[in-house]
Amino acid sequence: MTQPMPSEEILGAVAFDADGLVAAIAQQHDTGEVLMLAWMNREAIVRTLDSGEAWYWSRSRGTLWHKGEISGQTQKLVDFRLDCDGDAVLLLVDQKGVARHTGRRSCFYRASRDGKLAEIAAVQIDPKTLYGEGAGG
Amino acid sequence: MTQPMPSEEILGAVAFDADGLVAAIAQQHDTGEVLMLAWMNREAIVRTLDSGEAWYWSRSRGTLWHKGEISGQTQKLVDFRLDCDGDAVLLLVDQKGVARHTGRRSCFYRASRDGKLAEIAAVQIDPKTLYGEGAGG
Repeated sequence: MTQPMPSEEILGAVAFDADGLVAAIAQQHDTGEVLMLAWMNREAIVRTLDSGEAWYWSRSRGTLWHKGEISGQTQKLVDFRLDCDGDAVLLLVDQKGVARHTGRRSCFYRASRDGKLAEIAAVQIDPKTLYGEGAGG
Repeated sequence: MTQPMPSEEILGAVAFDADGLVAAIAQQHDTGEVLMLAWMNREAIVRTLDSGEAWYWSRSRGTLWHKGEISGQTQKLVDFRLDCDGDAVLLLVDQKGVARHTGRRSCFYRASRDGKLAEIAAVQIDPKTLYGEGAGG
């Protein structure tokens, strides 16, 4: 009998959806700021646990996605948590720089104000300096 | 021309999936603790914004779900936020009591420890005192 992979027990507890995906919340470990919601498949979880940096599945591009590979804005894994019924993952991370392509730290920068959406966080880095003219994570 | 509903602009910015749902993260507004991941449809968002308490769509029961209606563990809405591409909602809430049916404050009480899952949060309330012998939110 071979030794199971380190994350085999964990993988078995994840309730992947019909597309083989599970929702993953990335939260800054020290400030508690919720940075983004993304998706992971089995391989993304394995790579995240093995490498100590967040990997996701990009639904729009249909590819594995090493967060920050292009921009350098990686997420160092601090803790990997699973919810009661296994259909959501919480990644406590140390986010290097801004979280995403809008140049803001959190993706959740729009809030309900008087029945409308208002932007509540300023751009910290011009996205062009992160990616050139391209787009990505 | 009639006055639009207060939340009409917000609803238009939400990218509901093929099932008419959007992922919603509930976060305790003052401590930053991520309590749970749930789902909202259009009606759940309208009721949440109108009532000031969190409503969700239960995928398992196929019904609207006023969080805490049975257990009394309601979530008072503090802020309603939307991410960059509109496919995730962040609810900042004031959670009354424990978050969910396991009697713990957060659903994310299992964490990766040495390749296995360990429980990192104690039960605060016996679920039977919340619901009797039944189940629900």
